Amino acid sequence: MARVSIPIQIRWSDIDGYGHVNNAAMLTLLEEARIATFWNADLPDGSASPTQTLSGGPTAEHFTLVARQEVEYLAPLPFSQRPVRVDLWVSKVGGASLEVNYEVFSPDDVRCAIAATSIVMVEAATGRPRKLSTEERAALEPLLDTPLEFRRR
Amino acid sequence: MARVSIPIQIRWSDIDGYGHVNNAAMLTLLEEARIATFWNADLPDGSASPTQTLSGGPTAEHFTLVARQEVEYLAPLPFSQRPVRVDLWVSKVGGASLEVNYEVFSPDDVRCAIAATSIVMVEAATGRPRKLSTEERAALEPLLDTPLEFRRR
Amino acid sequence: MARVSIPIQIRWSDIDGYGHVNNAAMLTLLEEARIATFWNADLPDGSASPTQTLSGGPTAEHFTLVARQEVEYLAPLPFSQRPVRVDLWVSKVGGASLEVNYEVFSPDDVRCAIAATSIVMVEAATGRPRKLSTEERAALEPLLDTPLEFRRR
Amino acid sequence: MARVSIPIQIRWSDIDGYGHVNNAAMLTLLEEARIATFWNADLPDGSASPTQTLSGGPTAEHFTLVARQEVEYLAPLPFSQRPVRVDLWVSKVGGASLEVNYEVFSPDDVRCAIAATSIVMVEAATGRPRKLSTEERAALEPLLDTPLEFRRR
Repeated sequence: MARVSIPIQIRWSDIDGYGHVNNAAMLTLLEEARIATFWNADLPDGSASPTQTLSGGPTAEHFTLVARQEVEYLAPLPFSQRPVRVDLWVSKVGGASLEVNYEVFSPDDVRCAIAATSIVMVEAATGRPRKLSTEERAALEPLLDTPLEFRRR
Repeated sequence: MARVSIPIQIRWSDIDGYGHVNNAAMLTLLEEARIATFWNADLPDGSASPTQTLSGGPTAEHFTLVARQEVEYLAPLPFSQRPVRVDLWVSKVGGASLEVNYEVFSPDDVRCAIAATSIVMVEAATGRPRKLSTEERAALEPLLDTPLEFRRR
Repeated sequence: MARVSIPIQIRWSDIDGYGHVNNAAMLTLLEEARIATFWNADLPDGSASPTQTLSGGPTAEHFTLVARQEVEYLAPLPFSQRPVRVDLWVSKVGGASLEVNYEVFSPDDVRCAIAATSIVMVEAATGRPRKLSTEERAALEPLLDTPLEFRRR
Repeated sequence: MARVSIPIQIRWSDIDGYGHVNNAAMLTLLEEARIATFWNADLPDGSASPTQTLSGGPTAEHFTLVARQEVEYLAPLPFSQRPVRVDLWVSKVGGASLEVNYEVFSPDDVRCAIAATSIVMVEAATGRPRKLSTEERAALEPLLDTPLEFRRR
C-alpha cells in the first residue's frame, strides 16, 4: 500500500577513487534503510512502530539473514552532505522469508539505484529458518507494493 | 574455457555484529577479485597478462562501471586468517559490456556465495559507453565459461 | 567558548566481530562529525553557518588534509539505532592548520572515546599548505575550547 | 631486535573522494598487519610461530582491545595493486598491555604513515585486563625495538 522513505546519510568514506559511492557501499546504504524500517533493537521507550517488527541486532532471539541481493546502478551517486532518500517496500511475503525492494534517490532527486533483498527469518538458537508469525505478517502488510522490474536481468 | 581462482584476504572489519562477513563486504571481496583479474593499473614492469586487459583505476583513460550485481549468500563466511578463494569467469561478452560470474569458497572450501556483475566499458573523457576492442575480446575469450544458474531469481 | 554536539548514526557494518564499533570505524564517525561541522559542500540554499567555513569535498578549491590523529578508546561502543553524540571543538589554530578535539558519547551517554585531529589547509591546485584566512579564523573562534588531556600519551 | 614486514593489500574501497587511502582506512591496514603478526585464529595446522602469540578473533578465550592509537599521515597513499609494506614492532611491554609501532611504506617505498597502538589483554569471560604470561613475554621479546618519535605530538 505504502512505501516508506528513509533518509540515509552518505559518508565521505563511501566514496571511492571514481568520486562516487562505491558499488558495495550502496548495499550498506540499503542495509541502513532496512534496519531503520524493520529493526527495533533498542528504542529508548521500547515501543515498536507498525513497521518495526522484525527484530535484529546482536542480542535478538530471532535474526534476519540476507539470502540474495540484486542491484541495478542507474546513475553515479556523488558525495553530498544532504541525505539520499531510500524508498523501501515489501514486494512479497513468503513462509519464512520476505522480499524487500528499494529505490535510491540522490539529494537532487536522481534515481541512482534500484534493488531487491531476499530476507530469511532465522531462529538465533538453532540457526534455522522460522515462520513469520501472524503478527509479523499483519505488520508487513501495509508495506506491500508492486515488485520492481529489473531491466537487465 | 578456464576460470581463474583468486585468493582474497578477509579483513577483521569485514565481519559485522553477526560474526560473519557482512553482506555488503562480500561485494568488496568480489571487487578485489575483479581488479586482480582485469586491472593493470600499476604493475611495476608495465606488463599485462592475457587476462589483465580492462584498464581501471583513477588515472585510466577508460574505466569500467558496475551496472548491475546479483549475489546469493549460501553460507555464512566467518573470519579467517586464511584467504577465501574467488573463482571468477566471464559468462558473456556484449558490445560495450561483459558479465562476470563468481563463486566464493571459504578457507574450508564451503561454497559461500555465487554472484554476477554486469560491467560497462566507459570512456573517461565523455563518461559514455565505448565498444570493447578486438584485443580486449580476444583477451577475454580464455575466461569464457557457462553462466551461473541462480536458484532464487 | 562553545563545543558543538553532532549526532552521528552508527551503521551495522561499523560493528566488527567483537560486537562493538571497530577501532578504525570510530575514526569514520569522527570524520563525519568534522564534515558536519566544517564542510559546506552543497547546502541546497548555499548558505554557510558560522562554523561551516572550511570547504572540502571533491570539487573544492581548497581542501583539508588529516595530518595526525590520536584516539583513546574508553569504553566499547555497541550497536544502537540511536545516534552517538560527538562533542567537537577547536583546541588550537595555527598558521595553516588547526587542532580538532572530540568526545564521543554512546546513546546511553557513556563516554566511549576522546580524540584529536590535526588538520592542514591545502591549496587544491598545488597540493601545498595555505594560510587560514582572517574570515576562517574569525569563524573558528567561537569553537575554541580547552585542549583534551590524554591519559596514556 | 627485529621488525617484521607485512605486505598488506590496499582495496579500491579504501580510497576516498580525494583519491587516496582514507585516514580511517589507514587504521584498518594497521589492524590487518597486527592480526597477521599476533593472531593465530585458525591456522590449518594449528601451529604458532614465535610471533603469533596473542590470540584473538571471535572465539578466543582471551582477546585484545585497542586502548589508544596515534597516527601521523606523512604522504598520501594512492591506490595500487601492489601491496603496501607495514613494518611492525613492539616498543614496550607492560603488565597487561603492549605498545605496537608501525611504519607504512607505499609500493614505491614512500613512507606514508607512522603509528602506535596500545593493546590491552582482556579475559573474554570477564572482560577484565589480564597479565601477559611468561610465554607471551618471551615470544614478544624478539619484536622489541626503539619507540617511534612522533613529530607533532
